[in-house]
Amino acid sequence: MNGKNSPFLSRLDATAKDVDDLLARLLSAKAADGELNRPARLVEAMRYSSLGGGKRFRPFLVVECAALFEVVRPQALMAGAALECVHCYSLVHDDLPAMDNDDLRRGQPTAHKAFDEATAILAGDGLLTFAFDILSRRETHPDPAVRIELVNALARAAGLGGMVGGQMLDLAAEGRFAGNGPQRLGEDEVRMLQAMKTGALLRFACEAGGMLGSATPEQRKALKRYGSAVGQAFQIADDLLDLEGDPALVGKSTGKDAVAGKATMVGVLGGAGAKARLRQLVAEAEQALTPFGSRATILIEGAKFVAERHT
Amino acid sequence: MNGKNSPFLSRLDATAKDVDDLLARLLSAKAADGELNRPARLVEAMRYSSLGGGKRFRPFLVVECAALFEVVRPQALMAGAALECVHCYSLVHDDLPAMDNDDLRRGQPTAHKAFDEATAILAGDGLLTFAFDILSRRETHPDPAVRIELVNALARAAGLGGMVGGQMLDLAAEGRFAGNGPQRLGEDEVRMLQAMKTGALLRFACEAGGMLGSATPEQRKALKRYGSAVGQAFQIADDLLDLEGDPALVGKSTGKDAVAGKATMVGVLGGAGAKARLRQLVAEAEQALTPFGSRATILIEGAKFVAERHT
Repeated sequence: MNGKNSPFLSRLDATAKDVDDLLARLLSAKAADGELNRPARLVEAMRYSSLGGGKRFRPFLVVECAALFEVVRPQALMAGAALECVHCYSLVHDDLPAMDNDDLRRGQPTAHKAFDEATAILAGDGLLTFAFDILSRRETHPDPAVRIELVNALARAAGLGGMVGGQMLDLAAEGRFAGNGPQRLGEDEVRMLQAMKTGALLRFACEAGGMLGSATPEQRKALKRYGSAVGQAFQIADDLLDLEGDPALVGKSTGKDAVAGKATMVGVLGGAGAKARLRQLVAEAEQALTPFGSRATILIEGAKFVAERHT
Repeated sequence: MNGKNSPFLSRLDATAKDVDDLLARLLSAKAADGELNRPARLVEAMRYSSLGGGKRFRPFLVVECAALFEVVRPQALMAGAALECVHCYSLVHDDLPAMDNDDLRRGQPTAHKAFDEATAILAGDGLLTFAFDILSRRETHPDPAVRIELVNALARAAGLGGMVGGQMLDLAAEGRFAGNGPQRLGEDEVRMLQAMKTGALLRFACEAGGMLGSATPEQRKALKRYGSAVGQAFQIADDLLDLEGDPALVGKSTGKDAVAGKATMVGVLGGAGAKARLRQLVAEAEQALTPFGSRATILIEGAKFVAERHT
């Protein structure tokens, strides 16, 4: 469906490159107004943790959802770069020895392996803080009301009632705190956990496009439905990849979920059930975008791409 | 100077109580709009790390600087609460085993001791994120332009070119990365380190009062000068406290700076030199507030209070 030369993949790549260039520029050695000095080691660790890796699928969603409303591309890229800072910080902290204790990420040493634990903690803190710096800049949108809406929505998606909360539920499900082995979560609990841990940022990506584009309430609802379906599909594909993927291709260790007793939809529905659910979610994503007609083609391709990642 | 029944101390206490009440309300178990669910353990750890401790000196500065411009108190308290979230997150992360490895904070077990390391990391991440949630709310200021200015200034003060960067410089000065013992920093280097690590948030506190109150550029400059002097005095008093203080009174272990080879002004100037510098900084703080006349009395008391903490 998405062959090597598909228009979808070339647009995904183009956004990844633009986000990389933008982050490289923003994370320069030079202090911005109101900053005193950017320590070289910290800049290096933040760049290591955020540049040159990943498909940048979250910024892609921001950019393409914003494009539905003809938002100028540099604004959407700023919002996408801010979101990517949050995503990258979460990877750095999740990889820490006290968390998932991972040595590899995208085929490279994780931040605490390439640097050290203290530097990784600070680089994560720095990236999270920097996301809000980026969103607050005039380059992101000329209207302060739009910028503050983005700040609020990102804080909610990333915080205790979103991503950070989801990570807490995930550790709890592994039996990290009870001291008596993994919990057995039901389907609704797994769905909530995943909607928080990975879903919230993906949904934010889509909603941010609508915020930048002054979307109507109806359009925002459509983007939210699309983002929610894509978020669920993303996590199920990720879990299938862990179950069936080749570590050399995935760029990180696989087969860990079953060992750790992770709460996944694959665990709840089984492999075949999870694949059926993926097809259903792609249909939901497509359905949600009906109001946008053919302008949404690339976003439908995006949903399919996400669902097919495990193959 | 500031006796037990001084008007200064009663106002400091009143603000501490109001900030505590506000944070307790904001950090409730109930999910806000745009949040899915607040996991109980995370809420508990975030409350543990942010409620019921500390003098809340940063919120006090926000509130009293805002009062110069007759900003309504609930708005100033919101900004103060946001700032306190950032301060508390920084303590949680700084106390981690990979950082300063402290067991006690304000006489209580640190977050990773009371909970565990993973929960402490997440509680810190959650508090940092929550600060921007608070600043983005309408309750903080009706004008989105003011709120976004606060977001930008806090991100700059707290991030790679401010507090997080300062912590990185501090670890580097301890010789944590070179592998060959503590660096010997000169006075200018120590001053930069401290201006970033502790100064930036204290300066932000004062500038935030001016932002909330639509201060003139001249007034903002005065607040910045005052905040900068208070920030320096705060850190020197802290270092003297570590050198001379009684752990039972200080509520954390003391005498650690010399052992760790920490870069401090006491180390650079000696005890007597540091005390002379403190007196000079109080005079600077007082001088900076001249344009505000007698309305600034409480803030001058605040500077003296900070400088006298070590006695």
